[in-house]
Amino acid sequence: MCPHALIPYKPVNPKTRLSCILGQAEREAFARAMLQDVITNTIDALCTPVIVSTELYDSEDVQITIKDADLSSSLNQILPDCAGPLLILMADLPLADRESIQRVTATTSDMAIVPGRGGGTNVIFIKDTKRFHVDYYGMSFLKHMKIAQDAGLSCEVIDSFRLHTDIDEKEDLAELLIHGTGKSRAYLEGLGISLVVDKGRVGVERKR
Amino acid sequence: MCPHALIPYKPVNPKTRLSCILGQAEREAFARAMLQDVITNTIDALCTPVIVSTELYDSEDVQITIKDADLSSSLNQILPDCAGPLLILMADLPLADRESIQRVTATTSDMAIVPGRGGGTNVIFIKDTKRFHVDYYGMSFLKHMKIAQDAGLSCEVIDSFRLHTDIDEKEDLAELLIHGTGKSRAYLEGLGISLVVDKGRVGVERKR
Repeated sequence: MCPHALIPYKPVNPKTRLSCILGQAEREAFARAMLQDVITNTIDALCTPVIVSTELYDSEDVQITIKDADLSSSLNQILPDCAGPLLILMADLPLADRESIQRVTATTSDMAIVPGRGGGTNVIFIKDTKRFHVDYYGMSFLKHMKIAQDAGLSCEVIDSFRLHTDIDEKEDLAELLIHGTGKSRAYLEGLGISLVVDKGRVGVERKR
Repeated sequence: MCPHALIPYKPVNPKTRLSCILGQAEREAFARAMLQDVITNTIDALCTPVIVSTELYDSEDVQITIKDADLSSSLNQILPDCAGPLLILMADLPLADRESIQRVTATTSDMAIVPGRGGGTNVIFIKDTKRFHVDYYGMSFLKHMKIAQDAGLSCEVIDSFRLHTDIDEKEDLAELLIHGTGKSRAYLEGLGISLVVDKGRVGVERKR
């Protein structure tokens, strides 16, 4: 039983909140490295990745193309046609590892969810996709919990910092440098980005 | 087998990074409410809390008093004299619940550790306290992993966002309002602090 894993991904001009430390081409390469880490670990967790991309990009990944603004409604068109359980996880979760993903897919509840930092939703696992729909953006974690409740679905919240830590801002890069092991960490290190401690707090700096 | 749980706590002028939204008396009451949540859940997880406080405060909690600047060396004086396993967890972890604490104390390794956001150490569990010492501040998670390795101790890293989320800054309050259930959340709500979504991002605001 290898559930499909839908991975929403934006190849062009992604991660604009990292513009303070990465140029556009670098952000695109970094997002691609994070995607590769997520794909590797998703396969390792015995799932079959399908990239849900805002445009086609050059790779052998299985791809579905959607409009950027339309993630929720695009996914909601796909969901009723899925056979079997489905995982949806974001492409900016380079700390996701086999163990954390398998804690999600091993749920004994009807579905499982992992909140992102700031009330978002980083991972959803749904056994019967006909009974659920997604509603991303804003406080989506609480919205998804409500949708599950209204549909009579039991929902386990998976307590994982690896899946909770989406990489959006400069300070998030410190988490990747501390806890990451894959291509996205190596990409940052190749740019000369490293950890620094300033007044007892940990951040990152880039050698120019 | 109820391990002691040392809980470092600063009753006077704590959490200064929350000064933008809370006055000093409010920060002290809020820190006390978080401590109470941590104590409740620590007991629930079958541990015996001992508060390691920078000064005595009025309560029936079991207290040890230390100098603020001296957390690491004070704990290192205590460690060799501890009989049996020991948990050390911070007082600013109001999302800590029974399940997450018990994942730590159930480790089959010599010790377990939970990293905080930004490279800190939020929770340590040590079975043989004579073989380990602490070194807080800065990149303490990596330091503690190294100390364990040098001592030949196997160390499990517990993947928990509940124990990873220490409450230091205004944006962290959103996590407490989303995922918290205890006195510290109720305290914030009593002050009129609530979740807001601004440009798709979740934060908090305080009604004046």
